[in-house]
Amino acid sequence: METQPPTTTPRGRARARAGRSAGTTYTPLPRLENRWAPVEILTAEQVERLADAAFAILQDAGLEIRSARAREIYRRNGALVDDDTQMVRIGRDILEAMLATAPERFVLHARNPARDLHVGGRVVNFGPVGGAPNISDLRNGRRYGDLEAFRDILKITQTLGILHWQGGMVVEPVDRPVPTRHLDAYLAHIELSDLVWAARGVGGIQASDALAMSAIEHGTTVEALGARPTLLCVTNVNSPRRVDEEILDNIMALAAAGQCVVITPFTLMGAMAPVTLAGALAQSAAEALGIVALCQMIRAGAPCVFGGFTSNVDMRTGSPAFGTPEYVNATLATAQLARRFRLPVRTSAVNASPCVDAQATYETAFSLWAGIMSHSHLIAHAAGWLEGGLSASLEKIIVDAELLRGWAEILKPIEFSDAEIGLDAIREVPPGGHFFGSPHTLARYENAFYRPLLSDWSNHENWRDAGAKTATDRAHVLWQALRDQYVAPPLDPAIREALGEYVAKRKAEIGAA
Amino acid sequence: METQPPTTTPRGRARARAGRSAGTTYTPLPRLENRWAPVEILTAEQVERLADAAFAILQDAGLEIRSARAREIYRRNGALVDDDTQMVRIGRDILEAMLATAPERFVLHARNPARDLHVGGRVVNFGPVGGAPNISDLRNGRRYGDLEAFRDILKITQTLGILHWQGGMVVEPVDRPVPTRHLDAYLAHIELSDLVWAARGVGGIQASDALAMSAIEHGTTVEALGARPTLLCVTNVNSPRRVDEEILDNIMALAAAGQCVVITPFTLMGAMAPVTLAGALAQSAAEALGIVALCQMIRAGAPCVFGGFTSNVDMRTGSPAFGTPEYVNATLATAQLARRFRLPVRTSAVNASPCVDAQATYETAFSLWAGIMSHSHLIAHAAGWLEGGLSASLEKIIVDAELLRGWAEILKPIEFSDAEIGLDAIREVPPGGHFFGSPHTLARYENAFYRPLLSDWSNHENWRDAGAKTATDRAHVLWQALRDQYVAPPLDPAIREALGEYVAKRKAEIGAA
Repeated sequence: METQPPTTTPRGRARARAGRSAGTTYTPLPRLENRWAPVEILTAEQVERLADAAFAILQDAGLEIRSARAREIYRRNGALVDDDTQMVRIGRDILEAMLATAPERFVLHARNPARDLHVGGRVVNFGPVGGAPNISDLRNGRRYGDLEAFRDILKITQTLGILHWQGGMVVEPVDRPVPTRHLDAYLAHIELSDLVWAARGVGGIQASDALAMSAIEHGTTVEALGARPTLLCVTNVNSPRRVDEEILDNIMALAAAGQCVVITPFTLMGAMAPVTLAGALAQSAAEALGIVALCQMIRAGAPCVFGGFTSNVDMRTGSPAFGTPEYVNATLATAQLARRFRLPVRTSAVNASPCVDAQATYETAFSLWAGIMSHSHLIAHAAGWLEGGLSASLEKIIVDAELLRGWAEILKPIEFSDAEIGLDAIREVPPGGHFFGSPHTLARYENAFYRPLLSDWSNHENWRDAGAKTATDRAHVLWQALRDQYVAPPLDPAIREALGEYVAKRKAEIGAA
Repeated sequence: METQPPTTTPRGRARARAGRSAGTTYTPLPRLENRWAPVEILTAEQVERLADAAFAILQDAGLEIRSARAREIYRRNGALVDDDTQMVRIGRDILEAMLATAPERFVLHARNPARDLHVGGRVVNFGPVGGAPNISDLRNGRRYGDLEAFRDILKITQTLGILHWQGGMVVEPVDRPVPTRHLDAYLAHIELSDLVWAARGVGGIQASDALAMSAIEHGTTVEALGARPTLLCVTNVNSPRRVDEEILDNIMALAAAGQCVVITPFTLMGAMAPVTLAGALAQSAAEALGIVALCQMIRAGAPCVFGGFTSNVDMRTGSPAFGTPEYVNATLATAQLARRFRLPVRTSAVNASPCVDAQATYETAFSLWAGIMSHSHLIAHAAGWLEGGLSASLEKIIVDAELLRGWAEILKPIEFSDAEIGLDAIREVPPGGHFFGSPHTLARYENAFYRPLLSDWSNHENWRDAGAKTATDRAHVLWQALRDQYVAPPLDPAIREALGEYVAKRKAEIGAA
């Protein structure tokens, strides 16, 4: 299958006919707006009771904040702080004052202005797999991630044009030394993509280097980035009710610089949170609000996103599950809570399947549906996530791209006119006839329908004779073709050079330290 | 894989632990209600323009009605009929008068009263694959259907309890002679399942035998069935704008007996209908309304369902596509039109994939989502449909069962109470701790979450060591176990005997003719 040319996919055949390379075939997804009302599972009264519970948790139980600097900021702003236990308890009045300064919508700026990331309102954005220690594909199987795999993921998603922002650690480049790994990742983001990209969500150095490199990319200063934010960081807390210093250092640096903090408690029901949806949501909301408040204490108006990552576990084995009915309900409810707090919301399109199969697809389809219909603003892990996030899958990127492009098509307002209805065409075609040759058809058929990337609609005999390939087999061929046909976005050589110098300098400094 | 015991699936392990057979493990899906507002893509004004167009098509262009008997009924009710061209044109006033007598909701009665089929309102019902000439599974591949495969499908879906009504020709038993094939199919439905079942949608004899056998099943007379309907037929027309005599004979017999006619034009955009969504919907609505009107002319109040089966084709090859963005939009709009006409609506969960893979799953997930969120009342082909309906797949039944059971879980109202929120549990678990041992968890974990049928959440190593099976591989093991663990529903021996006699008598009569 590896030797199979990409032109055996239907999309490939179309490409071959059109004589275009994949590099120019895929127009990036436009800014997507969900014109439908959000799907909601909680009543307004239930939302209010969860909000009350979240406030009560922060006021009575509090969070363990494992950074003296962060505790000092909370203390200065009226929270009750115990430095021995590191517990911080925050009154509802303080939290509500802080929430009042957090923006309900904002824009993060991309190097390509056409790809600015609009966060809030009815806009739906897709992001890539993040944080996976392993890379997997059909030929080479599952192994530790490396920088080449990291760069391949960026090339494939950039060629497909399916993402509204770029990672983040799309896969861990474990072949690079930990202390400077983030520098290689950031350089790859800037070189290979022209989207908003995410700083690593852990570590103060990782945040300050992201700020410096983003400033170079945008030809400006770190100070100036505050007025025109370009970065986000996506980070968890250590649920239940604990936040480690490395995470706090990262968040505080980005918030101080006016960049976007996407705070996402990872609350598996029955493990790091109560076994009930209501309990897990209350705890998750408390953890997120506590960090949003910190960001606002540091810089009033700093862009923050209310993240939710609540799912269930297999209570027989303890293994996490994603894309389940519980995950769908948690996603719908999380977005309702975010609206209650007037914050943008981040959820995910995820699955726990060990391979790219029907399970990976239905779990992802369920969670993606919930993300979109809940009015989630950032839908993370929407391309390439597999195995509960333990692997980034190159074939899964292609399967997910079909889902994302399909949704983008569905979200388009439909065309509607008398010419579209075509009463004359209907009258002209005789009973039992067909419309293939109708002028009404011929005038439109070229671009009448969405053209799939991966789907094979050929009949059984043709499919069998072409090798009886599954969608995953075809995806294996396609991701390689897309990687090879990748075209880099424009980047000012002077900026490229300055970035190279910065990375070299920092590697030397960090190596010396 | 064939020799793999079913207990290697997570569900199987649970079953083994519980020491129960699959026959008693799966409780049938309850009556499902969609508490959410329907997702709509058309404005009220657009719906009205499509309704106007449908009425205009019937009034100006008309339908070719290839039955003198049917034309006579239309004529007696004021339609303009030309017996030479067989064209029937129906005025809007007549159509609106006929629509006024069609019920907006009704109940079809099952032998098991707990499984009565409620059609209309917010109720969502799932039905099986229908009309497939081929059966396919991983071991034996794709071949013509036979009565054994037909019965296997009934056994598996009955054991799973995922359907709200039964076929219909779930697969064509081509090993049985065509003239009496329907008798074998109906007997299988009554013997193997206790749900409402569907008459074959083509042929007068097929309709009258269904009526006779349903009357025997319910211990009543064909005349009495009119007051307490038990049957539906799902039938297409010969789009564009033609209805053959065999279809009309079937529809007329069932409508006359007060049974449910589900009329579903099959309108592939650019083939049997205009290439545009608006045009295809207008034509499809006209075709359906023309037949609903006929049913009401025959028996005012006869239960009818407005069916929609509009999708696109690959304009490069002409092959049909299902579960596409166009299919989703057509489904959402079809349900809006049905509401405009105050008729229940039927759509489908379908795909055009050549095998049970990621494509089959995302296309089915898209169309199932659209069916449910559009407020479709009957969602046909929701278990086992593959390859654009050319095959019924035994593995696909299992994959679809996971989707259907997942949706049923999502549609349940969520539990919500102070005990569910569990503030005390949250306070008691220390920061960074876990909830596995919490009393709040222990009191609930047994039934806290949906238990999947097919999904495998084990880690990579365990999955690999168990043979690295895909969901489709596991489904192959599971459908065989479910078939073998099938338990037949109660059936009065006297009724069973009377049915046998009826079938024998009819086979002799038809053989002699």
